[in-house]
This record gives sequence, structure tokens and C-alpha cells, in this order.
Amino acid sequence: MTVRAGVVVTGTEVLAGRVTDKNGPWVAQRLLEMGVDVAHITVCGDRPDDLTAQLQFLADQHVDLIVTTGGLGPTADDLTVATVAALYGRELHLDEELEQRIHAIVQRWRSRLSAATDSEPLRAGIRKQAMVPQGAHSIPPTGTAPGVAIPANDSETLPAVLILPGPPRELQTMWPKALDSAPIVEVLTRRAQIRQNTIRAYGLSEPDLAATLRTAERQITGFDELEITTCLRLGELEMVTRYAESAATAYTELAGLIDEHHGSQVFSIDGSTIDDIVANRLAGHQIATAESCTGGMIAARLTDRAGSSAYVIGAVVSYANEVKSNLLDVSAETIEEHGAVSERVAAMMAEGVLSRLGVDIAVSTSGIAGPGGGTDLKPVGTVCFAIASTERPTVTRTLRLPGDRASVRALSTTAAMHMLADALGPAE
Amino acid sequence: MTVRAGVVVTGTEVLAGRVTDKNGPWVAQRLLEMGVDVAHITVCGDRPDDLTAQLQFLADQHVDLIVTTGGLGPTADDLTVATVAALYGRELHLDEELEQRIHAIVQRWRSRLSAATDSEPLRAGIRKQAMVPQGAHSIPPTGTAPGVAIPANDSETLPAVLILPGPPRELQTMWPKALDSAPIVEVLTRRAQIRQNTIRAYGLSEPDLAATLRTAERQITGFDELEITTCLRLGELEMVTRYAESAATAYTELAGLIDEHHGSQVFSIDGSTIDDIVANRLAGHQIATAESCTGGMIAARLTDRAGSSAYVIGAVVSYANEVKSNLLDVSAETIEEHGAVSERVAAMMAEGVLSRLGVDIAVSTSGIAGPGGGTDLKPVGTVCFAIASTERPTVTRTLRLPGDRASVRALSTTAAMHMLADALGPAE
Repeated sequence: MTVRAGVVVTGTEVLAGRVTDKNGPWVAQRLLEMGVDVAHITVCGDRPDDLTAQLQFLADQHVDLIVTTGGLGPTADDLTVATVAALYGRELHLDEELEQRIHAIVQRWRSRLSAATDSEPLRAGIRKQAMVPQGAHSIPPTGTAPGVAIPANDSETLPAVLILPGPPRELQTMWPKALDSAPIVEVLTRRAQIRQNTIRAYGLSEPDLAATLRTAERQITGFDELEITTCLRLGELEMVTRYAESAATAYTELAGLIDEHHGSQVFSIDGSTIDDIVANRLAGHQIATAESCTGGMIAARLTDRAGSSAYVIGAVVSYANEVKSNLLDVSAETIEEHGAVSERVAAMMAEGVLSRLGVDIAVSTSGIAGPGGGTDLKPVGTVCFAIASTERPTVTRTLRLPGDRASVRALSTTAAMHMLADALGPAE
Repeated sequence: MTVRAGVVVTGTEVLAGRVTDKNGPWVAQRLLEMGVDVAHITVCGDRPDDLTAQLQFLADQHVDLIVTTGGLGPTADDLTVATVAALYGRELHLDEELEQRIHAIVQRWRSRLSAATDSEPLRAGIRKQAMVPQGAHSIPPTGTAPGVAIPANDSETLPAVLILPGPPRELQTMWPKALDSAPIVEVLTRRAQIRQNTIRAYGLSEPDLAATLRTAERQITGFDELEITTCLRLGELEMVTRYAESAATAYTELAGLIDEHHGSQVFSIDGSTIDDIVANRLAGHQIATAESCTGGMIAARLTDRAGSSAYVIGAVVSYANEVKSNLLDVSAETIEEHGAVSERVAAMMAEGVLSRLGVDIAVSTSGIAGPGGGTDLKPVGTVCFAIASTERPTVTRTLRLPGDRASVRALSTTAAMHMLADALGPAE
């Protein structure tokens, strides 16, 4: 049986486009992973009428579950709980134990900030956050805002609701406990077991994958039961398949067919990202980058991960030619002869940072991100890469990347990650 | 008079949380800037029933304008135009001139890719994209997908609709022409002249601003007519105020009050960002960065901008201590004595990159981004900064930044941008 959900994201900043919503996508992904179908995501400001209208819309669409994010703060414009309670005809009552709990959390924070211990507005805010609708289940707070789970009403004209706070870290930490609350468990037990698998390929075009999927449609029994979506992003083609247990054989056959046709381009069949793969393969290595057009983006991406200091030694961003010469030992003559954007210079940059920083693997970029600087021979988007290593000869490559400056830089960074993964080879 | 709009974002990838939507926020910002109120944003997948339900919901909410993004491609799952046309009871007809126009665009692209010139599926796709609902206005394509503007129906139970493509660059390029189409002009003429101003401050807390706003409420006549939203992001507090012409004096008084109370923290009153300000002030300078915990993020941010090669010379990411010594001349003894995360080391890093790269201003970071590496004395989030310059003594600063690794790194990068802006002082 299909369980359908709707997600309501609240917040004037999100509705006004000033803050990028992280909660809608995160909640949608978690729901889909556990076999719940997401039908609608809606965004509304801090206006109770608009929120009520969205909740009613989702109820009219017969979703089985509504998840709301945001609007649980201590101030007057945080009104999600009161608005939902009014729609469901459930009175709010003060949960005194919860009030004490929030009070303790707030006191701990304020003592750290050496702020005044107590005030009437502060107490009023805590009391507001401890108001729970009749018959609802409270979800313990990570910050100061508890979540609320409300069962569907008796006539089932209104679905179960899960109310969660807006700060993404609070929401994500509270998620497991929210799923354990009785009203949510009741909804989730009705869902069919759905599996979701992700295959990621690099350098595979959408039409080529589409051709393979047409072959699969002809050859594989039960192909119709696979719900496939594909998405191309920064040169990576991601194929997500959702299916019931009964279609597991069809999926296995599909995965086999894709491996047969595009095996050399597939880099992940278990959901791992290229960043996961590079990080795993870098264990025991020491890496440095020498970056021109990417301006530090590869180093920033490698050091995004906790624990990356075990293998990232450093980087040189050689935006100006003198830096290529002074810090990376690329001779001025080579730059003069081949141009800064050349495989020769990229090779010397990678070798320069390899030897200067004493690492065993290094990657370099030199390219024209635009909008200016392009020529007929080297148009905007031309990027040269090199991988230098203590173990084998330097490898170079040139790509012509499409799009604007931001696109060329992002595509270059991802390309460098894939070249690193290839150069490092499987771990173990 | 208030004109209310709803935005419908289509795309299974967006609904599933696999792609971050850029169109909803962009369109919302543009609408708000021109005085249109945005009531709802909804996201739906490539299912006509769900799209119809969302359009009907927005009509029921009495919005005056619906803007849809996405679903205009040549394939069968791109169904926005047909779905809207069906709801509005407008038959689709082939616009032959448009068909030829799209054909010419596609031919130009394919000849560049030296792809086969013509095929039946290709022609069918073009024909689909050239189908226009009866009485609708077509908006010339930037890519291959034309937009469509449809007036409200006669009974006004269905509002005007503007249908735009999903790729953000196509949508953004087509926007001005879309606003000029008759059905949209008709809606927009009904709106009141609304102004929108943004004040940005760094290091100002929300409660402090709230206190000033309470004072403003007491002191300023017409304060009620100002619609104020505030948003704290990476240490920057942004206050956006929307108001009718008639409340312009109240806004001027409010801006004056904020300047009086928080002038030293306000860095922008004209909508400019800290990146704009730093870029302007860097004209005529040469800059380099020496980064430890930010791992290249400051260099990457500075080089985000077209034309940054005029002033960005390069960067050294000195993740390992040996790089601090070898490339930045920070002595091993200093690191031993003060620790890598110290103002002394940060100062030497900035001075080292200043002299090595021959620039006149340099910024450095050395900190503990976590999750590991913290101590009682220097907990996770401790970050030391330095600004070295050929014109004045090195300035150092230590911050304790909250949150997880990503938060500490992002806050550090923004802090460095503000220190640079301060050190460079106003341009001219």
C-alpha cells in the first residue's frame, strides 16, 4: 500500500527567497528512503491563514501524513502548533514537565553566556513552547523547541501531522525519535516495503542511459514495477530506482544491464558519493592541490570532511603566473611557450606542489573560467588538469566545460575529484 | 492594492530533495522587489493531477498571478503547458512560426555538436514545444523552451499564469520579456508602488535589533506601515523592509534610528553584500590568503567573481604545520611555543604569504573546525585571524564560533571577509 505525505515548510525568509530551505529536501529524502511517497511540498510565511490553507489542501489531497518544519520558537510569530491545533480542534494545554525541561535547557545556555537568569518574557516564551495539543505526543527537544505528533482525526478527514522545528540540525537530530512516536508509527506501518537504490555514473549522457533503459524495458520482466528517476548534475548522472520487494529481481537485472553497457562510467552503486570514494581511497596517502581557475575549491571540498587533516597537507592557489613560478617551480619560459592554460603547465603545477609539499599525490587545474580571457584556440571553459604521483608518471587531461563562470568552476572541481578517484584506484 | 502571487515549482528531482530549487526563491525575490506579495510556493513532481491540484489550490486562495517553473522540455514527462491549458479550458494549437524558430535554435546547437541533423523524435519534440494554448501569449525562448503567459479567465475564478522553463539561466534571461507580456502587465498595473530596502549588519544580535525596533515603534509615526523581516545568517543580520511610498518618511526615520544605535555594525544600506564591498575596495590592491581551517574557502570565495584575477594573486592552504613553515616561513619554534591555532601563528602566516606572494594585503585563518582537535583552552570553534598589509601593522583577532565543522568554516570565511572590508576601508 502506498503511503503519501506532504511537507509544509514555514518561514517568511524561506518564502521570500532569502534563505535556502534545507528541511523540505531533507525530509523528502528520508520519507522516500523509507517507502513513503512525497506528493507535495509547500512553503508558507508566518501567516496562520496561509498555513491553515496549506494544511487543508494537503488533507484534501488525501495525504496520510503531513510533516511541518519551523515556527516553534518562543515568540509570537512562531505559530505552527497553535494553528495546527485550531484546525484539528484540539485544545492546547501546558505540559508542566516539558516546561521544566525546556527551562533547564535554557538556563544551561544562559549561564554559559552569563546572561540574566530569568525574566518574564523568557518564562512566557518557555511556557508557549511547552503548550501541547490535547491527545498529541510530544517529541523531546534538541534545542528548546519540542516537536509534536498528532494522530489523524477520527473521521480521517485530517491526516496525522508531525510538527518539527526549523533549525536543520535540531530537526535532523529529533527525526529518529519523531518516527518512534505512536501517531507516526501508526502511519508508517501501513506502507509497503519499498527499496531505493542509487547508481551514479560520470561522463554518461542522458540519451545513452535512456537508450539502455529502452532496452531494459523490452528485455526485463517486471521492468514496469521499477520507478526510475534520473538526474544530471555537474557531469554526474544519478539514477534512483524505487521498487517493492517483489520487483527486486527486475532491479538486479537492470543493474546488470547498466553495468554491462556503462560499467566504465558507473562509479557508485551503493549510494556513496565521489567525495566518500576519494576520502576512502586517500587513507594512507598525503595529498596537495595546485589550483588556478578553481581558486581553492578542490582544497575546500577535500577539507570539508571531518578527519581530512589525516591526508590533506595543503594547497597552493596560483592565480597569478608569478605564484606558479615562485611556489610551484613552473618556469616562466614554459608559461610563455605553452600558455598558463596548458597541460604542460598543469603537469608542472601538480609536480611542483607534489615535491614542495612532500606529498605522494597531487592534482592541479589551470583553465579559463570566464567570462573574459577566452580565445579561439582556448575558449572560455577550457580547463587543463594534471595528477602527479610519486608512484607513476603524471597524467594530464583537457576538458571543454560548458556554462558560466560558476558552472565551469564547479564542473572543474568535480572533474578533479573523479580524476583523483581514478588515479588512486580502489582502496584495500 | 495588494497583488498576491503563488509560485509552482515542478520537477520530480526537486520534490524528491535531490536537486536544490533555485527558481522558487529567485522568482519570489523578483516579485517582492516589484511590490507583489508572495503567498505560497508549492513544489510538485511530474504528475499532472498533482500539478492541477496545486494550480487549483492557488486559484482558490485568490492569488492574482501564478508563476510556474519547469516542465517545458520536449519529452512526454514535461507537461506543464498541457496541464495548465486543460485546467483553463484552452485548446492547444501549433504556432508554426515558433516551431520554425525552435527548429533553427536546435539545428544551430546540433551542428555545433555535429549531431545528426533531423529525426522524427526530434521534430516531434520541437512541435510539442511550439504548442500554445488558445489566447495565450508566447514568450521567446532563451534555450529551446518558450514561455507562456495566460490571462485570468473571464469569471476571474482562475488567475493569470506565467509559465517559465526550469533551467535557472533560461528562466532568468526570459524574465524581463515575460513581464512585458500583456497578461502579466495587466496584473502588475494593479499593484501598489512598493519599495523594498535592505540593511545589513555584522555582529549585531537579533535581541539588540528587536530592542531598537521597539523604540522605533514608540517614536516613529507610521511605523505600522513598515513590513519588516529580519534574518540572521553567518553572523550577518539582514533587515528587509517593504513599504508603500506613503511610508517613505517612516522608513527614513527608522534607518536613521538604526544608524544611531548600531551604526558601527551596519555595513550595507543599499543592498550590497560583503562580497560586493570587498571586491570594490580591492580595486588597485593585490591580495593573497593563507588558510588553515578554512582550507581554501576564502580564496574560492574571492575568485567567485568575474574579474577577480585583477586583484587575487593566490593563496596557500597550510593544513599541515610543515606547509606553514616551508611556504609561509612560520618557524617550527613559534608553532611549538604558541600552538598552530594562535594569533602569533596567524600573524606569521599572513605576513608570510604577503611577502612570499608580493601582495599588499593578506588574510589568514588558523582554527579548530572540529569535530576533533578541541582542548579546554582552545575548544572546537576557536579560530585565529590575521590581516597583514604593507601599509600598517598586522592586526590579529580570535573568535569562538558556534556550530559544527561546516558552520565554523562558513562563519570563519565570512568573518575574514568582514575583517578585509574593515582593513581596506571605504574605496575612492
